[in-house]
Parts: sequence; structure tokens; C-alpha cells
Amino acid sequence: MQSIRVDLGERAYSIHIGSGILDDASLYAAHLKTGRAAIVTNTVVAPLYLERLRRALASAGVDTIDVVVADGEQAKDWRTLDQVLDALLRARCERQTPIVALGGGVVGDLAGFAAAVYQRGVPFIQVPTTLLAQVDSSVGGKTAINHPRGKNMIGAFYQPLVVVSDVATLATLPPRELRAGVAEVLKHGFALDAEFANWLEANVERLLAGDADALTHAVRRSCELKAGVVAADERESGRRAVLNLGHTFAHAIETGMGYGSWLHGEAVAAGMVMAAELSARAGLIGEPEVRRVRDLIARAELPVAGPAELPLERYLELMAVDKKVAHGRLRFVMLEAIGRAVLRADPGERLVREAIAAATAAAVAP
Amino acid sequence: MQSIRVDLGERAYSIHIGSGILDDASLYAAHLKTGRAAIVTNTVVAPLYLERLRRALASAGVDTIDVVVADGEQAKDWRTLDQVLDALLRARCERQTPIVALGGGVVGDLAGFAAAVYQRGVPFIQVPTTLLAQVDSSVGGKTAINHPRGKNMIGAFYQPLVVVSDVATLATLPPRELRAGVAEVLKHGFALDAEFANWLEANVERLLAGDADALTHAVRRSCELKAGVVAADERESGRRAVLNLGHTFAHAIETGMGYGSWLHGEAVAAGMVMAAELSARAGLIGEPEVRRVRDLIARAELPVAGPAELPLERYLELMAVDKKVAHGRLRFVMLEAIGRAVLRADPGERLVREAIAAATAAAVAP
Repeated sequence: MQSIRVDLGERAYSIHIGSGILDDASLYAAHLKTGRAAIVTNTVVAPLYLERLRRALASAGVDTIDVVVADGEQAKDWRTLDQVLDALLRARCERQTPIVALGGGVVGDLAGFAAAVYQRGVPFIQVPTTLLAQVDSSVGGKTAINHPRGKNMIGAFYQPLVVVSDVATLATLPPRELRAGVAEVLKHGFALDAEFANWLEANVERLLAGDADALTHAVRRSCELKAGVVAADERESGRRAVLNLGHTFAHAIETGMGYGSWLHGEAVAAGMVMAAELSARAGLIGEPEVRRVRDLIARAELPVAGPAELPLERYLELMAVDKKVAHGRLRFVMLEAIGRAVLRADPGERLVREAIAAATAAAVAP
Repeated sequence: MQSIRVDLGERAYSIHIGSGILDDASLYAAHLKTGRAAIVTNTVVAPLYLERLRRALASAGVDTIDVVVADGEQAKDWRTLDQVLDALLRARCERQTPIVALGGGVVGDLAGFAAAVYQRGVPFIQVPTTLLAQVDSSVGGKTAINHPRGKNMIGAFYQPLVVVSDVATLATLPPRELRAGVAEVLKHGFALDAEFANWLEANVERLLAGDADALTHAVRRSCELKAGVVAADERESGRRAVLNLGHTFAHAIETGMGYGSWLHGEAVAAGMVMAAELSARAGLIGEPEVRRVRDLIARAELPVAGPAELPLERYLELMAVDKKVAHGRLRFVMLEAIGRAVLRADPGERLVREAIAAATAAAVAP
């Protein structure tokens, strides 16, 4: 097992990463003071891991109540949030009763937001069971639900007391979701750490094969890198934007294709190739760096180009909407080098068009 | 105009108190950076003050959108919160767009919670127009909505950027609500500051008559006193409990009579007499101090005893419920002196009965 500390002053917390640690009661014990806890999970994860977690907490002398919500993004809504809050109130959970999120990003976002607002905030513990949640949601304190008018529009920044990331749970993850999580891992290498990018070039196949040591290292290093950025910018103003490498393009892909048809990680993968192509056209990196980005993404069995169905003009339309929302100040996260992302002003429509086209042509080629 | 600073580190903010300052644009200008703001108010306050506030903000170059919600406690619900959030989304309000709460405690709690969760937190400005909101909600950062299973069960601690308390707005307040606000002012004197209690004994009639200077001083001193306690205990663990002087009894009165039939301040007034009677029986203060508490409350035209319809046994039943919720550790805020409240263990049922009975008998007597 490896542990890191996310340094946020009085809200600092630990992330424990290892194989088979889900039911290590000692990792939770220090944070379970009242003899009770509420576990929030979903219908897919509950049959796999709920009983093990429940038994681990029972061995620490903790009674649990379970709240099992529906699977999928549609569970990030008012109705499901109210299901959680109502269950907490019915069980007379108090301000000291922790909420434990057992599941992927949706469960973490939903349960975390419930923890942020139940009685103005109760202790929160995360047990992420997807790679995306382990490398992304476990650091940063973002919690939210969706509103019919926009994703993640209602939420809070709320930090957990502890995160327990058991990489053995990734064995039950559909391979496509594992790969989508790997996209976020690659992003941390490309955006933040050349050495980690090198390690990923040597080990990406081990991640796809579910190698526990490789996954543990990848999750730990991703969390460390993200934590470094977040600690410097907890409420997301400037520096934190570099974590959005590829996201301007990914957003256009996700919206253009309809949310859910491409996984977020898949869109980010293609978006990172576009960001690399744009960076090269802006004179920040050379063709060899673009090739490294594209090749590693391809080895991870992730898309290196946007969907053929999405025409270039549609990207530009969708980006224009983003630009309007941002009061005309559309900025792009670009690469100055492998491992060094920077936020730059829009380099102009011609280069953006070329970058998207380049990452579309590449897909059509064999 | 008087100004105080609530010292909460990076979340520190100023409260400005004066007569006719509602439309002093200079008080808001520093916090309005984007040229837009959303004003949340209700159907009673809007006709009185919305246009003045809107014009003041316009003179600072700020376009406003208005969200006018229903009047009354029932507006602190999911449905009304969603009305506010939906209006913000429709108007494409961004993370930098401030929400201005114009109204009493309900509007402040609702708009403050909306500000806490809209896009994970946007700037919040409070313009309280009731005495209760000026002396209570303006310090402490408590925001919330109600849940069918409990009041204030869903909320957040969220601090405003600035509070503008115009005591001239209190002229449009129903006298009964003004008196209920005075109860909270008296509470700050009794619980926290003997000198302020003396001042109130000399000036309580001026407050009831709407004297601007007296109101300005009372609001300022109340905010200062509450801010001192809150700064030491932002998230409400120990010391902050002394602000609940009279509340254990008040809670029984409010629940026993059905919420709304007694105003909160009225129940707190009677509850403070009971707390004083209990403190005397526990040997902490003498009969002269109890008389001072009772007399000042009576001069404020507030109830010095619980409702005749509520039998002694019903108080004890309702307190037993609170006790169960608190895992058997019912504690009482008592007075060690006028101006010095302390949190003490339950002194036993006999004394509690006597204290309630004493404050009931006192009411029946002329």
C-alpha cells in the first residue's frame, strides 16, 4: 500500500492506494468516531463490494446504513440527492455521522455533495472503485449534481477525511471504462510530469492488463500530481486550468455527439491529440512530441482523433458557444513540452481548424 | 454609518450599518466586478426596496437580474431553491456573478445557500431588511433550506463578501417582527456583554420606537458580539453554543405550539426567562439577575413566559426527544452573570420543572 497526503491546511487528508485494501478497517477507524456511518453506493457496485465494506466497518464497531442509488449519470440529480438526504434523516444521522461514498465518479459526486449540505456538512469518506474516480475525483474536492440546464451546475468544494483506493476493484470494471480512466492518467503525465510520461510509455500495457503494482503507482503519481496543482489553487482560478488539457476539444466532442456516446476519457484522449497538434502549430512543441502524445494514446487503445461524424464546422460552433460563455476570452491549454502544460490565449481560428483536421485525418489513416 | 469587520481569515468581510444606506452604491462597488448581479428577494420586500437597490447597482455600472420568490418560511424549500438556480442558469450567470439577498432571514438563508451551491459557489452579498436578519443571519455564515423531515437540515456554512444593514428598512417591519428581533439583541446582551445589557436597559424603548441611532448601535454591537464568538468557532462546536441562550426551552415552545404560531424571537424571549430561572436554581445567579432578565424582556413587549396552553409535561417530553437526538447529553446554556453565559450539563429534571413552572406562573400573575 502507498499513501499520500493532500495538503490543504486544516482540510488536509490522506489517500491510501493498494490492492485489496477496501476492507482494511484500520484505514477508516480514525475517522469513525460515533459508531455509525452511512454508505452511499449504487446498484452495480453494491453486489460487488458493499458487504465487504460493511463487514470491515462492523469490525471497527461501526453500524452502517446503506443508501443504494441507481447506476449512471442520471443519478446525479435532485431526485437522487433527495433520496440520499431523506435516508439520512430517516436514520437520524447526525452532524458527526460520516458518509462513505462507495463507487465511481457519479456516486462520489453525489454522496460528496450530500455530505457537503446535510446539516451544513458532515464527515465524508471516499472509496472510489473506478480508475477515473481514483485518479480524478479523489483529489480536488469537487462535488456536484447536474441540473437540466447544465452538468455539474449545483455543487460544492468539499474535501474528504480520507480516500481508500483499492486497485483490485478495477478488475470488475468494464475494459472500456478502465481505458477511459487511463486517459486521465496519461493527461497527468503529459500536462505535469515528463518522468511520469516516460514511465507510462514503458508501462501502459501493464495498466490495461490490470497489473496491481503498475496501477498502484499510476494512481499514486496521478493523485500526487493533481494534489500539487490543487493545493496551490483549491478553488480553481488559474493554475488548476492545466488539468483541463484536451478539454476544450473534448467538450465539443461530448456535446456534439450527445453526452454519453463517448466516455469523457475517450473525448479527452482525442482532445489531447488536438491540443498537441495545436501546440505544435503555435510553435510550442515539435512534431516528435505530437507523435509521442498520439502514440501513447493509441497504445492505450484510446481514440487519437475525434469522431468522423463530427464535422470541423461543428467543433467551431460549439467552441463559439463556450467562448460566448467566457465573455469572448477562449483560452487553450497547450503543451510547451511533454510534462509541461500552459494556459494560452486563443491562437486564432486557422490554427485551431488545422489542429482538429490533423487529429481527424490521423484517425482515418490506418 | 458604522462598520465592523468579521474576522474569518481569508473569508473576512465587513458589515455596514446605518440609516438610508441601502442604495449607497459605494458599499457594493468593490464586490461587483463583472457588471452583472442577481438580486434575490420576495414578494413583500420587492415593492418596497428592489427598485432602489437596482438603481444603486445600475449607477455602479451593474446590470441586475431579479428573482422574486414567495414570502414566508415555506419558501425555504427545494422548489424555491430550484426557482432561484433555474433563473441564474437561464440568465447564464457565471462563477463571478454575485448573488445579492434583499430581505429577511428566509431570503438570506435561501439566497445564501443558492450562492453556496451554484457552480460550486459564487460571490454573495447580504442586504438584510429585518432586525432579526441584521443581528443574527448577517454573522455566522449559516445558510439552509428546510426538508420535510426537519428545519434547516440542508445547507452550508457560506460567508458573504459584504453585509449592508440599513436600519431605515426596519420602519416597514410589522411591530411584532421588530420586537422578535429585539429579543435576539437582548440575548446578545444577556449572554455576552454586561455593558451592552446596561445600555439596553437604558434604551430598549428607543429601539421599539425605531430610533435610527439606537438601532444602529444595537445592530452594530450585536454583530460585534456574535462575530467574536463565531470567529473563535466558525463551524459551531463548543463556544458558539452560548448564542443559544433560551433555545432549549424555545425549541419546545415552537414545536409544542406548531411552528409559526410563536415567532422564534418570542419563544427565545420566554426561553431566556426560563434559562435565567434555571440558572438561579442551579446556584449560578441570584433572584435580582432573574428579575433584570424578566423586566427587560417585558419592557420590550416580549413574552416573559411560555404559552399557557403548553403543559409542563409537554416541555419535558419535547426535551426528551432533543436529549435522545443528542445521545442523552442534553446541556443547557445558563447565566453565570448578566453578560456571561456558559454551557452546563443538565442540572436535573426537578430544577428544570421548577424553572419552567416559575416562568409560567410569572405570566399568569399580572
